[in-house]
Amino acid sequence: MTIPKSHPRYESLRRREQLVRAWKGRLVVPEGLIAHGRGEAWDYLLGEETPAPALVAERAAAAFLVRARRPVISVNGNVAALATKEVIRLATAIPATIEVNLFHRTERRVARILARLRKAGGKDVIGLRPDARIPGLPSRRALTHRKGVFGADVVLVPLEDGDRTEALVRMDKAVVSVDLNPLSRTSQRATVPVVDELTRALPNIRRFVRDLQGNRSEADRLARTYDRDANLRALYTFLDWRIQGLARARGTGRRRKTRTR
Amino acid sequence: MTIPKSHPRYESLRRREQLVRAWKGRLVVPEGLIAHGRGEAWDYLLGEETPAPALVAERAAAAFLVRARRPVISVNGNVAALATKEVIRLATAIPATIEVNLFHRTERRVARILARLRKAGGKDVIGLRPDARIPGLPSRRALTHRKGVFGADVVLVPLEDGDRTEALVRMDKAVVSVDLNPLSRTSQRATVPVVDELTRALPNIRRFVRDLQGNRSEADRLARTYDRDANLRALYTFLDWRIQGLARARGTGRRRKTRTR
Repeated sequence: MTIPKSHPRYESLRRREQLVRAWKGRLVVPEGLIAHGRGEAWDYLLGEETPAPALVAERAAAAFLVRARRPVISVNGNVAALATKEVIRLATAIPATIEVNLFHRTERRVARILARLRKAGGKDVIGLRPDARIPGLPSRRALTHRKGVFGADVVLVPLEDGDRTEALVRMDKAVVSVDLNPLSRTSQRATVPVVDELTRALPNIRRFVRDLQGNRSEADRLARTYDRDANLRALYTFLDWRIQGLARARGTGRRRKTRTR
Repeated sequence: MTIPKSHPRYESLRRREQLVRAWKGRLVVPEGLIAHGRGEAWDYLLGEETPAPALVAERAAAAFLVRARRPVISVNGNVAALATKEVIRLATAIPATIEVNLFHRTERRVARILARLRKAGGKDVIGLRPDARIPGLPSRRALTHRKGVFGADVVLVPLEDGDRTEALVRMDKAVVSVDLNPLSRTSQRATVPVVDELTRALPNIRRFVRDLQGNRSEADRLARTYDRDANLRALYTFLDWRIQGLARARGTGRRRKTRTR
């Protein structure tokens, strides 16, 4: 099905098709499709654009990544399906190691995702020979690399599950999450929770990385003054305002043609 | 994976597994998995139990179904995966015809879903030989049966898409929807939008059907006085209250172990 670019929800529908395609290519598991649906609902509530508090978090995320000694980006099936290009561009800008980490891990799927990342120009990409374990996680979910997530001081985890995020925080890493659900355990536990859609968040973070590389004292100041709780509260306020607005627009509009955004 | 019954989100996780199983059995398409994820996010916001306004809508839905001359329940892949038993019980109680209607229609998938419904005890179940078209819908999505949806006066459409809901309303049918998104086009356009999770909504409607069958004047009164706009407004107010509550519970709780519900 071809979606016209003029469709108000073009980007969202295009991403959905991308994911179904990646599922057919066995990069993505069925649970990943369901998780994507949850994200779609949240993004619909956010208005399918970056809210101001998310932009603040993205700038803080960039500050943490610029200051890192060993920054690592963790990639799973959904991330590879939706944002291979954006991940590689960000990794190149920082520069950061990319590690493939799957919740439903099979070596074959790791290999397929690695191949996709390398084909798209990824240089420092690992995942196939894990040599360490994240403490407190069940078997296969704990697998990681010493020169990857295990040894990192700052880890960017897009679309990560709550258990892993918590475990990484317990290891005293600075964890930057990208997750559309502001109430998820991941968003609750991350050092810098970015509540935004992946393909909007990563390019934003990259632009801020570029800016801050020329201004280390500003990066230091951002990392020092960033207030995650205040940022999340601002996000909740925004979400609340959106829902009230949507409800008002719908209130009596049985016949009115109201659009999502 | 076995989920302990004590898990706070047991029902939600069990349903997710059910759906993945049905997808493996080719009852459900990948787009159905994504749609289910959207529903999960909404249900999480609703608190994973029937909100009071939904109960009011379920009672009105029962009134419409009891008073119908030709009530029909429309079933798609996700509905069959999640609520075959509940659909059949409700259809038997009314009694109503069950018609299989797929958004991504293939005759094979229709046949598989029919087989599942019949195996579970469904008697009046159709879908394989459509002989009519719903006006205003593209090709395969328009296919229907004269003795099914096409000829019905009241249609129950669980997990329906907006276009079809609109088309049925244009045909002057009373449309009862079950959809967790209170802002969706389906919930906006249906005659009686039930904003609740399917396996909670259908047994509730069935109980009300039983009650109202012994009290036709009450069914008449309910159908006459039901105010959909007021009901949706009550739902928005509830949703808003929930989000404010969730945000408050999360507000500064980086270390606190707050649960979803």
